[in-house]
Amino acid sequence: MTQYLTKFDRAALQALGVDGWAYGFADRVRFHELDALNHVNNVIFLRWFETIRVDYLQDYGLTSYSHGDEDPQIVVRAQSVDYFAPMYQNETYLLTARTKLVKPSSFIMDYAVHVDGDVRCSGSAVIVSLEHDGKTRRPHRARAVDRMVQRDGAERAGV
Amino acid sequence: MTQYLTKFDRAALQALGVDGWAYGFADRVRFHELDALNHVNNVIFLRWFETIRVDYLQDYGLTSYSHGDEDPQIVVRAQSVDYFAPMYQNETYLLTARTKLVKPSSFIMDYAVHVDGDVRCSGSAVIVSLEHDGKTRRPHRARAVDRMVQRDGAERAGV
Amino acid sequence: MTQYLTKFDRAALQALGVDGWAYGFADRVRFHELDALNHVNNVIFLRWFETIRVDYLQDYGLTSYSHGDEDPQIVVRAQSVDYFAPMYQNETYLLTARTKLVKPSSFIMDYAVHVDGDVRCSGSAVIVSLEHDGKTRRPHRARAVDRMVQRDGAERAGV
Amino acid sequence: MTQYLTKFDRAALQALGVDGWAYGFADRVRFHELDALNHVNNVIFLRWFETIRVDYLQDYGLTSYSHGDEDPQIVVRAQSVDYFAPMYQNETYLLTARTKLVKPSSFIMDYAVHVDGDVRCSGSAVIVSLEHDGKTRRPHRARAVDRMVQRDGAERAGV
Repeated sequence: MTQYLTKFDRAALQALGVDGWAYGFADRVRFHELDALNHVNNVIFLRWFETIRVDYLQDYGLTSYSHGDEDPQIVVRAQSVDYFAPMYQNETYLLTARTKLVKPSSFIMDYAVHVDGDVRCSGSAVIVSLEHDGKTRRPHRARAVDRMVQRDGAERAGV
Repeated sequence: MTQYLTKFDRAALQALGVDGWAYGFADRVRFHELDALNHVNNVIFLRWFETIRVDYLQDYGLTSYSHGDEDPQIVVRAQSVDYFAPMYQNETYLLTARTKLVKPSSFIMDYAVHVDGDVRCSGSAVIVSLEHDGKTRRPHRARAVDRMVQRDGAERAGV
Repeated sequence: MTQYLTKFDRAALQALGVDGWAYGFADRVRFHELDALNHVNNVIFLRWFETIRVDYLQDYGLTSYSHGDEDPQIVVRAQSVDYFAPMYQNETYLLTARTKLVKPSSFIMDYAVHVDGDVRCSGSAVIVSLEHDGKTRRPHRARAVDRMVQRDGAERAGV
Repeated sequence: MTQYLTKFDRAALQALGVDGWAYGFADRVRFHELDALNHVNNVIFLRWFETIRVDYLQDYGLTSYSHGDEDPQIVVRAQSVDYFAPMYQNETYLLTARTKLVKPSSFIMDYAVHVDGDVRCSGSAVIVSLEHDGKTRRPHRARAVDRMVQRDGAERAGV
């Protein structure tokens, strides 16, 4: 599990003891992620979810982050997070992401932080795809939706 | 509304057009809170909730953040956040917090970010009070619970 | 000194016991600015310098941060910082900035963090004004240079 | 160069085209490290220097970050940084650190960020070793000093 930042697929994650996820990578807790209580600050987990979400959106083909018109604006509408156990300096973890449900211009993602077979923290996000006016919905690219379904086993609704 | 960081009570907030909250202060969006999309990054709102929570816990008397034995360990177990509209550089906002429900050694807080009468973002957190072993529950101080009830109108459950 | 974020000029700063500066505001240490050693993290002081620099550049008229062609790209080329004493949770400080030297398309700024008449941290930055190609120098607006000289007593070189 | 976070020694770094450094690792720019100008924020480079400094101090044996009496308090007294070229989302870089000069209870470190043979940013820090009173100097462990000299070629002064 020391191949940091390398993208793992379903088989690679299973080999590392993590079932049910098709996208993830390993990373290590850094000093600046700790707070005055000497464990990882609870806001930092949301940062990690953002980091893997940005990678995922590019790898699955939802956006290339060109900030140009060929890409939709991808906007988080809501998030939730559950904390199960604290994390400490230098700990190595596996960060995973998957789409649970995909609709024509929105989707719901799950995230989890795994250490030695335990989940330390998990989260969920509701995400929408918009035109550059920030209001009108833009439908997802068909290929990206297919990947969500094929790789993650995402449920389709109206797609 | 230009009295930045000054603590506002229920009457002061009402005078500023914000009803239903008894604790808040004004602040201003800083450059480093923007992300590459040029609006306030979605994780930053959780930072704001943390900032007002830390102030609230001290002002209501739940902890003095001494990191010593006289104070409980206050731990966030879960959080959720809803984003209603983006925020931009230099915008001034009112940040508010209140306890919705208080149990003997836990409580649920709400947070909101107000701009000109609109709520741009709201959140909620489930928080527990622990001994320094990080496991055993430590009951809240009675005076802090009284303040939650009297100031915020928090519902008591088993307290 | 409890008028947080209000811009202070030379006279107001002098009245607060801070001589030699013409631009500043008060702020308060937040929980997320502490690190695992329970004092303000050394990188955070650079954040503070950035915050006041962005305000200063707008107030003195060097840029409006429109990200459009009417504004130059303002780029930090070098920075240095000296730490004199640690800072702690909830401490109130005065943050000040001034231009020391201004050339046709660059300038050198100083920063300081004051608590009760002591300087806890000071810094300096070399800044250049560029066209949107990120390479060609764009001369400062004359009015901004005049303000640097009149308000801060900045030394002119070749302007 | 895709072995992220793996510690590289002098030979490994030379094989990657980076001469003159004996300690480094590769990492990748994350979305949250960009600012509203869509490149890596200038403060973030100091974060990177902190991350590699904390690893270095542990690996060379100056401290184990136990926060207990067996370890000194390691305090940054001054820092400087030079920015040579901007960095962008997803870029991979090599981050390196070395001690230039070591005295009985202080030392000077250099840092650099390398991309494809170019240095995008470099920095320097003056660091002291203190007792837990935060004032009295505590001499470095002899073994750590030896490593600084042998691995990095650090100059000794009074040690």
